[in-house]
This record gives sequence, C-alpha cells and structure tokens, in this order.
Amino acid sequence: MDEVQEAIGVIDSGVGGLTVAYELMRQLPNEKIVYLGDTLRCPYGSRTKEEVQVFTKEMVDFLMKKNLKMVVIACNTATAYALEMLREELTIPVLGVIKPGSRAAIKASKNNHIGIIGTEGTVASQAYPEALHSIKEQVQAESLACPLFVPMVEKGITEGEQAYELVKENLLPFKHTFPMDTLILGCTHYPLLETTIQQALGEEISIISSSEETAREASMLLEFFDGLRTESRESGHEFYATGDVEVFRTIAEKIFNEEITNLEKVCMEKATI
Amino acid sequence: MDEVQEAIGVIDSGVGGLTVAYELMRQLPNEKIVYLGDTLRCPYGSRTKEEVQVFTKEMVDFLMKKNLKMVVIACNTATAYALEMLREELTIPVLGVIKPGSRAAIKASKNNHIGIIGTEGTVASQAYPEALHSIKEQVQAESLACPLFVPMVEKGITEGEQAYELVKENLLPFKHTFPMDTLILGCTHYPLLETTIQQALGEEISIISSSEETAREASMLLEFFDGLRTESRESGHEFYATGDVEVFRTIAEKIFNEEITNLEKVCMEKATI
Repeated sequence: MDEVQEAIGVIDSGVGGLTVAYELMRQLPNEKIVYLGDTLRCPYGSRTKEEVQVFTKEMVDFLMKKNLKMVVIACNTATAYALEMLREELTIPVLGVIKPGSRAAIKASKNNHIGIIGTEGTVASQAYPEALHSIKEQVQAESLACPLFVPMVEKGITEGEQAYELVKENLLPFKHTFPMDTLILGCTHYPLLETTIQQALGEEISIISSSEETAREASMLLEFFDGLRTESRESGHEFYATGDVEVFRTIAEKIFNEEITNLEKVCMEKATI
Repeated sequence: MDEVQEAIGVIDSGVGGLTVAYELMRQLPNEKIVYLGDTLRCPYGSRTKEEVQVFTKEMVDFLMKKNLKMVVIACNTATAYALEMLREELTIPVLGVIKPGSRAAIKASKNNHIGIIGTEGTVASQAYPEALHSIKEQVQAESLACPLFVPMVEKGITEGEQAYELVKENLLPFKHTFPMDTLILGCTHYPLLETTIQQALGEEISIISSSEETAREASMLLEFFDGLRTESRESGHEFYATGDVEVFRTIAEKIFNEEITNLEKVCMEKATI
C-alpha cells in the first residue's frame, strides 16, 4: 500500500473558514484538504484567550492524526490567540489569516489608508492594525465592526437588495469618514459578500479577501518547503464538525457549489484523551 | 558598536530589478536593501544556463559580504536558471520572481486563462507556463514576447501616445485571440508600463506585476522566519552596478522618484577572488 497522502489541515471556529478551504481547493487543486470546524463551541469571539488556545490545540491534535504537512488557522480570533503557540509546538508550517490579508493590503494601497471590517472580537483585538503597523508604520488603519454581516451570511443572504442595503448602511459612513483606498475583509465569512461590498463601495476601493490571500500564502510556503503536490489528488477532501453536521453541510455546499461527501461529526473531548 | 544591520540583497542582470527593489522599499519600509545590477554583462536573456549560473553566483558572493538575511533574484532569466542552485547553496531564504507572479495570477484568474508577456528569452524558457501548470494544471497559459518594450522603457518612455500605441499594437491582437482575464508582467521592466498596459487592455483584465508580488512574498517569508524589522531603518540603501553608474543612476532616480546616494561601480571578477 502506498503511503497515505499528505494533507493541508484547516481549522476554524465554525463554517467561515470554509471560504479559506474553497480558495485552497481553487488555487491548489492537487492538494487534499482536511477541515475541522468547531461549530459546537462557536463563536470564539467572546471566549478568553486561554479557552481559544485550549480549543485550538484540541482541534490541531485531532487533525495531526490525518498526516498533515501544513496547518491553516482559518479563524481570525484563533489566529490572534494561538498562532504563535502552534508555531512553537508543531514541526510543520502553521499559517494564520491576519498577516496574509495585511500584506496584501499594504501591497494594494497607494495612499496608505487601509480599512478593516470584522466581527466585534476581531476589531477589539486590534490584530489587523497591529499587523499592518508592524510591517509599515506609515499605514493609517481604521476598523469597523459589522456584527450583522455573519448572521445574514449564515442565513444564506449574500446578494440582492437586503444584503446590498445592509452593506451600504454599514460601509458608506465608514467610507465617507475615512479616505481608504483598500478594505480588508477581516472575517472569513465576508468573502461571500465580496460582490455586494464592491458594488456598495465602488471600484475605486480594492477589496482584500483574507481567505484568498491565505490560500495564496499557503501555496508559497508549500513551494518553499518543497511540499507542493504536482500531480492530481488521489482522494477526496475530508470535513469534520463538532456541532450539527446538517447545518454545516448546507453552508458548505453553498460555498463549494457542490455536494459534500466525507463529512463526520467529531467530539473534541474524546479527541484529547 | 552595534551589530551591522541585516539587509535584503537584490540581484538583477541590470536595472529592471529596481522595480522589485522599489516595491520592497514601499511594502517593507523598515528594511534595508542592497542592490547589485550586472549592467556590464546585461542582458542575460541570450546567455547560456552555465553563464547565468556563474554570473549569478558571483553576484551573490559579493552581496553575501553585506550581512544579508535574504536574497531576491529580481531577474526572470536568473530565476529560471539559478534559483534552485542558490537555494541549495545558501542558508538564508532565496526568492525568485517567477513563482510569486504565477501564484498571484492563479489567485486572480476566474476563468483560468492567464497571459504572460516577457522578453524573448523568458518566453522561450516556458518558465511561467511551467510554474503555473506545476501548481494548477487546469490553467490555460499563453505567452507573448514583447522585445520592443524594454528598449522603450530604458529610453524613459513609459506613458503618452508613443508608449500607448506600441503597447496597443502588441497586446490587442493577443487579447483578441486568447480570452485571458489575467496578464502577468513577466519582465521586471514592465511594471513601469503598467498604467499604459491597463489602459490599452481595459479594466476587465487583471494585471499582475511580478515585482509587487515578489516583494509581498519577501514580506511573508521574512515574517515566517522571524526576520522582519519592526523598527525604522538605521541606514540607507546601497546600490552597486558592474557597468556605467551614471546610466544606472538616471534610471534608478526615475523609478524611485528621488536622488540615489550610495551608488558604486564594482568589478565582478575581482569579487570572486
């Protein structure tokens, strides 16, 4: 029997990270993805740092049995709280979502005014402004929490009048008070609203999807470590969720626009024994 | 005395790589750049693989005395012929220009049709189609050599009617025969023509600058290896050229839009003793 194929592990507090998984599949079609969403304990935004670290560690311990070559933390909160810890503990590369979006925004911005939208937790953490300033202190960064976006996306509303009105209502006052030329979608749910956000803000603002950018940096790191598969994938992707798998399936199939097989419910406490 | 500040070394066959240096300075303003352009032996496009490897090695040997933490090969030909060799020989990260542009194009393209323009050498080498296919075999890649672009840029003509007419004449037939939604500027001179190329092709085509993308990946790799400076730079950038320094200065000052200090002529044969 051949050696088991190595995979990219993706962890998230829930379903938002599926946009990162989708981009990994689109940009790296030869790679196998193993995804774990902690939908039972979602959202992480209101958890303490210690809780998020324990949960993240549990998820990674579960995924590490799947023969991984890389871990992607496809969750802003878990990236902010657990990326450094995981990089110290694991011998394979670990990637978060905050720096890829920040680097892409610095590249895109001509006027050094970068806006960030995210959940209340992500905005409160100041993770994006800190990441931006650690690379380029000249950047003017302003964040806006958009707490109504995730519930709307999870209801399946991403385009049409209702989505457009809510997006406009939240983002136009931000655009008018802050002269950004670049906006980071600092939440992995928001790429599903990208078309609507671009319409509302106009073409003059560059929209940066952390999901697209994280997948692109995963591509880079795998090449750097000679880990990129150059042949077609042998087996299907795998999905795991700690909560209701049918809700997960519905959202995943909407994002991937295809049927999801290989989806299982897992219990985290059991996985940590 | 403090330890000498670590720098990013940039090598190129001539002046084209200055667009990569410019992007490194823009995206990573805390970093010090040491640039060496082999203007005496430029262009590399018509050289053999062995010649390019020897020249590249000589340049890197010279720069390695400058306390580098990373080397960027800001030349398509040298990347194609010498990247793997340098990665094996050096203990610091080495970055080329071909894969960053390829990854960014795969990220940007929605219809998987990616055009590449470059010098005759780069197009003949098939380096971009090979890089694209090694990551995503579904990509349709078509290349076009634009041998008149570099001489025009080196004359300082990058905008206006003459530039627009030449760009249109070269690129419109390409656009009409190949349904690309993304175009890679596969030559480090071409970012200077980016505005003109975008005008000629229209907004519906995404233009990928290998220079911007390489700087962005340098940012990523430095962060990954904990090598990113988070404080302001202490000293100025350094520039070296093997040929006429006044021609070099004129082009460099046009690209950076500021005066170039710290420019010296160096002799490569001497540097290899």
